[in-house]
Order: sequence, then C-alpha cells, then structure tokens
Amino acid sequence: MLKTELAPLAEAVRRQMSERRWTHTLGVVGAARELAQRFGGDADKAELAALLHDYAKDWPAERLERVLREQGLATDLLEYDKELWHAHVGAWAVRKEHGIADEEVLDAIRWHTSGREGMTLLDKIVCLADYIEPGREYPGADRIRELSRHDLDGALAAAFDGTIRFLLERGRLIYPLTVLARNDLLRRARQRREQS
Amino acid sequence: MLKTELAPLAEAVRRQMSERRWTHTLGVVGAARELAQRFGGDADKAELAALLHDYAKDWPAERLERVLREQGLATDLLEYDKELWHAHVGAWAVRKEHGIADEEVLDAIRWHTSGREGMTLLDKIVCLADYIEPGREYPGADRIRELSRHDLDGALAAAFDGTIRFLLERGRLIYPLTVLARNDLLRRARQRREQS
Repeated sequence: MLKTELAPLAEAVRRQMSERRWTHTLGVVGAARELAQRFGGDADKAELAALLHDYAKDWPAERLERVLREQGLATDLLEYDKELWHAHVGAWAVRKEHGIADEEVLDAIRWHTSGREGMTLLDKIVCLADYIEPGREYPGADRIRELSRHDLDGALAAAFDGTIRFLLERGRLIYPLTVLARNDLLRRARQRREQS
Repeated sequence: MLKTELAPLAEAVRRQMSERRWTHTLGVVGAARELAQRFGGDADKAELAALLHDYAKDWPAERLERVLREQGLATDLLEYDKELWHAHVGAWAVRKEHGIADEEVLDAIRWHTSGREGMTLLDKIVCLADYIEPGREYPGADRIRELSRHDLDGALAAAFDGTIRFLLERGRLIYPLTVLARNDLLRRARQRREQS
C-alpha cells in the first residue's frame, strides 16, 4: 500500500504507536492519497504527512507536555485537551528524528487536529483524511464521507462542526482555533458562491 | 417597575426601539434586578445596565457600522453577525448621549451579547438576564432559567452553548470571543470544584 521508499520511515512510525493506531494511520494514508488525487493535491506529500500525522499521538502526556514547554511550541495548547498536543509535538519530532524538512508536510502534521485559519490544500487533505478513514466511527461520519466526494471545504467544516458539538455535549473546552478554522472555511465558501 | 429617577432615561431608551424591544428591555431589567439580588450584585447598576443594554439594537445596520468604523470599536465584529454590533455601539452611545460614565455599567452593555473572558459579576447578570427574561423563547430556555436559580456561571455557560449550537445548525459564523467566554466559565467552575 505504502510507496516502497517509505518502508523504513513507516517502520519507525509503527514503533511509536499501538497496533490500533497503526491501522488508523494506514487508513489515513489511503484516504489522504485519494483526496489528493480528487482535489488536485500532491499525492506524495499527502501520503507522507498522513503517515506521520499521529507520530506522537501515543506518547505519554508528560512527554508531550515537556516537549511543548521546552520547545516553546503553542503553549496555549496546555490549557486545552491533551488530544491536541500530539500534532505540534509530532511535527517537531519528525523533523528532529527523521530530518523531515518540507514545511508544507510539517504544517499539515502540525495543524491536523485543531485546523487553523488559512489552511493549505495539504492541511485540509490530511485533516479531513483523519476524519474519514474507513476505521473512524462517530455520529455524522457517513455524511462527512459523502461530502468529501465533491466538497473538500464543506466536508471539513462539517467535521469541525461535529467536533465542536461533541465538546459542547461533554462540557469540554473548545479550542478557539478550531472555531476560527471553521469560520474561515465558511467565509471562503460564501465568497466562492458570491463570485460564481 | 423602574426606579422613578430612571424615568427620563427610560423614555429616551424607549424612543430608540420598537414596542416589542421595549417590552423585552423591561423584562431584562426585572430579571437583572432579581439576579443581582440572588447573586450579590449591585441591583441599581444591574437595573441601569439592563435598561440600556439594547439601546442601539434597532438602529439601522449602516448606522451601527458607521459608528464601529468611525470610533474604531471592535472592528473585528464587522466580519461577524450584525446582531453583535449593537452592544459596543450602545455602550458608546449611552456615554455620548446620556453621560453614562460608570465603566462597570458600560462594560456590561458592551459585552452583553458576545460575552468575554473574565466577565464581571455585572457582565454576567446582564448577559444572563437577556437570555432568561420572561419573553424569551428558544430551545433550552427553561433549563437555563432553572440553572439561573442557583448557578450563575453554569446558566451562562449553558446559554452560550445554546448560542453556539444555534449558529452551528444554521451554518453561521461563531464569534470566537463567545467560545472564550464559555471556556472561561467552565474553567472557573472546574477550579471551584477542585478547591472545594
């Protein structure tokens, strides 16, 4: 499934995580490649970023926190759910441990959980692939998969909406950047409608 | 219902708005006074801020936009729903037109729609009174009224949650400050639980 030259890196990724997370990662690789082909993205970069997106996800929270603090990475994250921490740490780790230097790929890893304003095509592909890979099950997943067949921004906005709803239902903090990312996607969709 | 010395100001407020909005305003005055008594706020300031909270609500959007631009008030608001504009304009207008100089009162007017991080007791009272006055009808209103009998922060967080859900359902932009206000209320509630 993965391109042959990625095999050594894939093995290193696999060692960072549980079997379940590795299965998820391969799902995201496949979904990201498909989305890249569908929406005119770079399929090789999408595959690489997807392979690496959860590099630090199974690291202990203490290790994630230490890296965020020591490296001064998005320390506002420390006030929010631990689930957000691995993305920034992952981007830092794959550069340090595997020499990944492509800023587009690093950004797609860095922003794949929270999203951000002005997401690049690659950001969107990796973030959405994470939501729609075949193993993911949550309320509304099929609608997002359906949207992802023809509307990248619409599918991603719907995915962020679902995350915000999930956090509201559980009385958990909402990371403001996710709201900004979602607003930005809606604004751009509106501008496109007005121009067409 | 209103204190006698407020009669001339009340008449000026009434002239800014529709009959329906004036009825709502009187409802907010009553609810704010009750909340102030219940939660140890200043009932006179609550009444004054409630009386003035929608001063500019029925002004035409063009007038609101002009004031925001000319006075350099929270111009980020211009990218969001018009419904948010009147609060900042109202605080500016009641100072200019009626010499209201009490910063606590002005803040409560200014932040009554969006909320903000670090809301004062008066901010919370006026904001929540706006959600629970007897004339307001929306999904979840009764639960928020029920919460407001014993839990000011919890009721207000639930009210903001409802607003965020409303905007999600309609595909409308969410003003990030409302998310920050809601997160802040949840964080403080958590801290209080941990300390008790």
